[in-house]
Amino acid sequence: MPTDTALLRQAVQLAHDNRAQGGRPFGAVLARGGEVIATGVNEIVHSHDPSAHAEMQALRAATRALARPSLAGCAIYASGHPCPMCLAALVMAGAERVFYAFDNHDAAPYGLSSEGAYQRLRMPLDPPPLPIARLDTGITPAQLYGDAPWPAAHGA
Amino acid sequence: MPTDTALLRQAVQLAHDNRAQGGRPFGAVLARGGEVIATGVNEIVHSHDPSAHAEMQALRAATRALARPSLAGCAIYASGHPCPMCLAALVMAGAERVFYAFDNHDAAPYGLSSEGAYQRLRMPLDPPPLPIARLDTGITPAQLYGDAPWPAAHGA
Repeated sequence: MPTDTALLRQAVQLAHDNRAQGGRPFGAVLARGGEVIATGVNEIVHSHDPSAHAEMQALRAATRALARPSLAGCAIYASGHPCPMCLAALVMAGAERVFYAFDNHDAAPYGLSSEGAYQRLRMPLDPPPLPIARLDTGITPAQLYGDAPWPAAHGA
Repeated sequence: MPTDTALLRQAVQLAHDNRAQGGRPFGAVLARGGEVIATGVNEIVHSHDPSAHAEMQALRAATRALARPSLAGCAIYASGHPCPMCLAALVMAGAERVFYAFDNHDAAPYGLSSEGAYQRLRMPLDPPPLPIARLDTGITPAQLYGDAPWPAAHGA
């Protein structure tokens, strides 16, 4: 069975590959008992859909593959800390836990933080609404995000 | 230009029609300056995708139609009060305001409230993160929701 760190590294690799193809540097893997059920990458650039975050794309693909609207028993591995929309979707779908590689502090210098959205929605993360943990993948934020700020993806 | 109430009645009609086709009774209309840009209905039953709420489907369709990931200048008319996922998506995409017909108190007897999700996420609505107002459409909750509790749509 792959380790949590291995699954998270897979999510970071997806983010890296998505960036190489002109997308934003976010990837996610959804797994149950170590088995990958679905993956997702941020598709905002190509689709113009601001809900097409990596975690949402993985959630959609997983529930369609499972043919049930539930992530019970599933963990998600996300290259970046989930934003409020994704966290709400994961909680409402019953996801069990979240692992991520880079937090909003890592992402802020690159214009990739969702901290502003958390503040606008006043959604508290301490304690979080489901278990959420950062793991060290051995990859640095600069290796994934590059060296220039990214344009804002959203209208807000 | 259609009134806000007329656009909201259109959303309620979409919810009603979706129910008649076996879907959950939720509909949404996205408009800019009174012009309808996109509509959506709850597609969870047929797609198994728990993110396929009416507001999210309308958001996706609107931004793809506009070819930009922003709802700046747009108002959304939703048959039911948006859940935390949808509200976060709308705020992050820069939607201007929300109108809805039925609140979570109306929806609770039918098993259709998102109040539990707001509590789990501890997301406060007073004051709301964007202007949000209830309008009277002249339609009652029973007329839209029926007379029996609905099964839960989500895993949580």
